[in-house]
Amino acid sequence: MKVLLLFFFLATIIATCQGASHPVVGHHKPGFRSSRVPRYPRNSRGSESHKPGFNCLSWRLTVETNNIRDWAVVPQACLSYVGHYMLDYQYREDAQAVADAAYNYAKSTPLIKDFRNTWIFDLGDTVLSSLPYYAQPNIAFGGTKYNSTKFAIWEMKGIAPVVPGILDLYKKLQSLGYKIVIISGRSESLRAVAIKNLKNLGFINWEKLILKQTSDKGTTSLVFKEKKRNELIAQAYRIIGNVGDQWNDLLGEHAGYRTFKVPNPMYYD
Amino acid sequence: MKVLLLFFFLATIIATCQGASHPVVGHHKPGFRSSRVPRYPRNSRGSESHKPGFNCLSWRLTVETNNIRDWAVVPQACLSYVGHYMLDYQYREDAQAVADAAYNYAKSTPLIKDFRNTWIFDLGDTVLSSLPYYAQPNIAFGGTKYNSTKFAIWEMKGIAPVVPGILDLYKKLQSLGYKIVIISGRSESLRAVAIKNLKNLGFINWEKLILKQTSDKGTTSLVFKEKKRNELIAQAYRIIGNVGDQWNDLLGEHAGYRTFKVPNPMYYD
Repeated sequence: MKVLLLFFFLATIIATCQGASHPVVGHHKPGFRSSRVPRYPRNSRGSESHKPGFNCLSWRLTVETNNIRDWAVVPQACLSYVGHYMLDYQYREDAQAVADAAYNYAKSTPLIKDFRNTWIFDLGDTVLSSLPYYAQPNIAFGGTKYNSTKFAIWEMKGIAPVVPGILDLYKKLQSLGYKIVIISGRSESLRAVAIKNLKNLGFINWEKLILKQTSDKGTTSLVFKEKKRNELIAQAYRIIGNVGDQWNDLLGEHAGYRTFKVPNPMYYD
Repeated sequence: MKVLLLFFFLATIIATCQGASHPVVGHHKPGFRSSRVPRYPRNSRGSESHKPGFNCLSWRLTVETNNIRDWAVVPQACLSYVGHYMLDYQYREDAQAVADAAYNYAKSTPLIKDFRNTWIFDLGDTVLSSLPYYAQPNIAFGGTKYNSTKFAIWEMKGIAPVVPGILDLYKKLQSLGYKIVIISGRSESLRAVAIKNLKNLGFINWEKLILKQTSDKGTTSLVFKEKKRNELIAQAYRIIGNVGDQWNDLLGEHAGYRTFKVPNPMYYD
């Protein structure tokens, strides 16, 4: 128990202090893992070798492939595994691989030379990382039930770092001529803080930042985002690509010619 | 090179000799990995620790999340990684986790009490495993380009083992009252051998086994399967669930209320 608490304590510090100018999640020096955080407990199946117990690698794969949905919390057996994954190299490299795949598609796609080519981004944990929030001991990387009040207090600080690889992708897409539209389930009341956070990280010149209005309250993420994409289509935007950490960002009508799923084993939304 | 050849040689033997009565892919005894196959080469990034080089875990995740598509072969750097994954516990447990997720959804879904509740299965590498074929040295777990003639010769033998967890899922779904419809891109000319292979493994009483007719030739997998599902809907079948190892089985119209992606890092179809 002491070890677990120490892990969360250190994890919080590490996740919160990711550099200064353009903080990127999980960017730390080699040797970090072995010296500062404990090894996976035996029952979390963090490695690919065979030990009895709940298989956290299989659980994460079922999450990432949308095989399990509407789950409320990370299984207790996988708290340490998810924490290690999110703070260690693999998450950073997995996110970078998504950005690489998106860019490779974007640059190799023949575009009609007009101003309608659009790329959609989700906001939370696609662009702005909430890992410093989730790394807090009482949040336990998604091991405790989502608390909207607590999260809103953290969000109001506007101190989210960027999801690995995404700022670079964003800039490259703009260079290729794509218009960027960000669609987020966050409340309109958080617009100013979101803009400040984005600009501090180096995101500029987006076409639209679409947030949830009071009238959208109660709409599911899937329905809300589909509706907003349909409005974009009606305004003659051509949705080429779409990046999100939740399948609800990437399914439904006009999801984009291609979709790119950013890893997120901490919550389902 | 010698070590790699030895690996493929052993892999072929192991993949081909998976038990006798109800052969299940990857079913081997603990201790198998360390004693019979070499460790991942340094550049394949088989573990989650940080070493420079191509990250095969990230590559596999981009495949499983449909972030990269239309890829022709497994990257050279990941041949050994994919081979180990497919023959080792993790693939078996990942496939079992898909079957578990599907069953948990199937049993908890309130069904209208009629005879229209339907569950779709793809055939190749969703039900019938082609791992013994892919484990051959000249196929190299998808490291060499797909050869339809070679594969058809192997298919004609009708000796495919079952994908882990799937026979049990199939039987449980039938017990819950689901009608099973198998939709496969395999040719109608292979019907007899497929039926014999399925029955030998213990699969019985499916509602339909839909194969590709001469008239369907040239249709993509996505279009063909969508067309067949639309025909089912027109015949009043209600598609509740859908299991496949390719995203082309699971996307498009009437894909099912829920879809379940079986892992397959060996090929894209």
